[in-house]
Amino acid sequence: MIDFDQLDKVIHEKARLSIMTLLAGHDDWSFQDLKSELGMSDGNLITHLRILAGAGFVEEERDDSGSRPRTTYKLTKPGRKAFKEYIDVLEAIVRAAKP
Amino acid sequence: MIDFDQLDKVIHEKARLSIMTLLAGHDDWSFQDLKSELGMSDGNLITHLRILAGAGFVEEERDDSGSRPRTTYKLTKPGRKAFKEYIDVLEAIVRAAKP
Repeated sequence: MIDFDQLDKVIHEKARLSIMTLLAGHDDWSFQDLKSELGMSDGNLITHLRILAGAGFVEEERDDSGSRPRTTYKLTKPGRKAFKEYIDVLEAIVRAAKP
Repeated sequence: MIDFDQLDKVIHEKARLSIMTLLAGHDDWSFQDLKSELGMSDGNLITHLRILAGAGFVEEERDDSGSRPRTTYKLTKPGRKAFKEYIDVLEAIVRAAKP
C-alpha cells in the first residue's frame, strides 16, 4: 500500500511542486527566470518561495557584485532529499495506476 | 515544460488522490474496505467521496439484495479519463525529476 501521508504538504501544493521541479532540474534560478517559466505573479512566487525557504527546502543567494544585484534560488540539501522522497511516492502512484 | 495547471484540483488533494488510486486499481470498493485501507474516519471519507461524486468522477451503487445493504464505489468513465490525465502529468514530473 502506498503511504500517501508521505506526500509532504509543503511540496504537494501545485505552485510549490512546480517551483521544486524546476529547482531540482538545475541550480541557480533567478527570480525573473522562475517567474517567466512559471507564469506566476511576483507576489505569488514570493509567497511560495518563502514557504519553501521556511521549510528549509530552498535558499536564496544574493550576488551584488555585478551592476545589478541578482538573487538566485536553489534547493538545499534537505530540500533535495524531501523532493526525492516526494517523487518516490509519485512514482509508486504512477506504477499503481499503470499496471 | 510540464503543464502543472493540468493537475486537476479535485484529484490532487491527498485524501482524494488516495481514493482515486484505489478505485483505479480495481472496481467496486465497499465503504468499509475503503475506510480500512485508507485509515480515514467515516466523516472524512464521506466528505471526499461526495466531492469526487460531485465532480462526476466516482459513482456509488447500492445493493439491497443481500441481508445487509451494501454500497460500493467505482470510477465513472470521466473519472477514469481525468485520473489518467492526472497520472500523465505525475509521470512527466517524475521523468523531469529523475533525468
